[in-house]
Amino acid sequence: MPEKKWDRPQGVPEATSERLSLVLRGLRALEAQGVHTVSSFQLAERFGMNPAQIRKDLAQFGEFGVRGVGYRVAALKTKLKELMGLERTRVVVIVGAGNLGQALADSRNFNVDGFKVAALYDIDGRKIGGKSRTGVPILDLATLAATLDDCRADIGVIAVPAEGALEAARLLAGAAVPAILNFAPVSVPAVEGTFVRNVDLTFFLENLSFQLAVRGR
Amino acid sequence: MPEKKWDRPQGVPEATSERLSLVLRGLRALEAQGVHTVSSFQLAERFGMNPAQIRKDLAQFGEFGVRGVGYRVAALKTKLKELMGLERTRVVVIVGAGNLGQALADSRNFNVDGFKVAALYDIDGRKIGGKSRTGVPILDLATLAATLDDCRADIGVIAVPAEGALEAARLLAGAAVPAILNFAPVSVPAVEGTFVRNVDLTFFLENLSFQLAVRGR
Repeated sequence: MPEKKWDRPQGVPEATSERLSLVLRGLRALEAQGVHTVSSFQLAERFGMNPAQIRKDLAQFGEFGVRGVGYRVAALKTKLKELMGLERTRVVVIVGAGNLGQALADSRNFNVDGFKVAALYDIDGRKIGGKSRTGVPILDLATLAATLDDCRADIGVIAVPAEGALEAARLLAGAAVPAILNFAPVSVPAVEGTFVRNVDLTFFLENLSFQLAVRGR
Repeated sequence: MPEKKWDRPQGVPEATSERLSLVLRGLRALEAQGVHTVSSFQLAERFGMNPAQIRKDLAQFGEFGVRGVGYRVAALKTKLKELMGLERTRVVVIVGAGNLGQALADSRNFNVDGFKVAALYDIDGRKIGGKSRTGVPILDLATLAATLDDCRADIGVIAVPAEGALEAARLLAGAAVPAILNFAPVSVPAVEGTFVRNVDLTFFLENLSFQLAVRGR
């Protein structure tokens, strides 16, 4: 087993990013309700966050608040989307059209404002040429680099068995996909020029077990 | 849309839990290699962690190190498993035998040391009575409480569409399942007596977009 750094996100801390994702959701909900301005206290209270933390997170990236007014909902939403690179649609491709890949391709979570799943890639001839339930085409993995010439992908998702994960990462990096989200049950090392985020689903189960144990269960 | 707290884990902070999961993985790897003792520096170096952080995380829960020796690998592994409630097998049931539910049931991440996926539950008569690829039985969701009388479940995973998530949570809580891991694209509120962890897969995509944006992509 290769001993290497467990890949921790570099750059923006994940906790900051997650909190800003929550703020963005909050702003979307407020905008939908016709609310024009909001204080960090109101935002924090409605979404169970810490107002000082919200101000601190935002202050790292610029001057967003208006003294005596708080935040202007529409303007902050626009700035936040821009900051997070969500002012344009991020193209997602998924390697692996098995249960997980197809679940992700069809998931509402992967088809929200700002993201579009363009294609699934697989090596199984019985799947290639087909579509997922919601119509995402399943393409031949061997054509990844060639097909991505037309449709530049921002994020490549790895949803293959452990054995295929490194090869999938190599192909995605070779096709100049700048970010990889790996769900395979093996850690993919950082690849030059590509940001890799490994998601270990076991962590969720272990965290729940831990939470139960501290409660004596 | 109900405005409520976004469900943040209470109790053990998730970051602590995740770091201890990493430490546990590290100890397993060291044990497999016949290593008997390790310092927090060695542990940290091999797994890309901060040694002071490892000591601090562990110190919250007891006295694990031996002065001049560091940590005894086997003893620390045993204590850590006990602390995290992993000294026994946690029984997992999954509500929803669609692509996501079946992917999770068959995933290596969900079938590691300490966890066992006992059953999938669904409402689709064409699926009930069948099995996932690795042989996890698919049972009738209507029989959840009754079947869990025999096999006490520790963790209930929700892998249904948004519309079914609250009902799935209600059924799991009604069957006295103490922890819920929700992958449905809607936040499930905390249920009395049950610990709920909502996983929003959009966060991963938003985080990657953010990481790309700070790199000018």
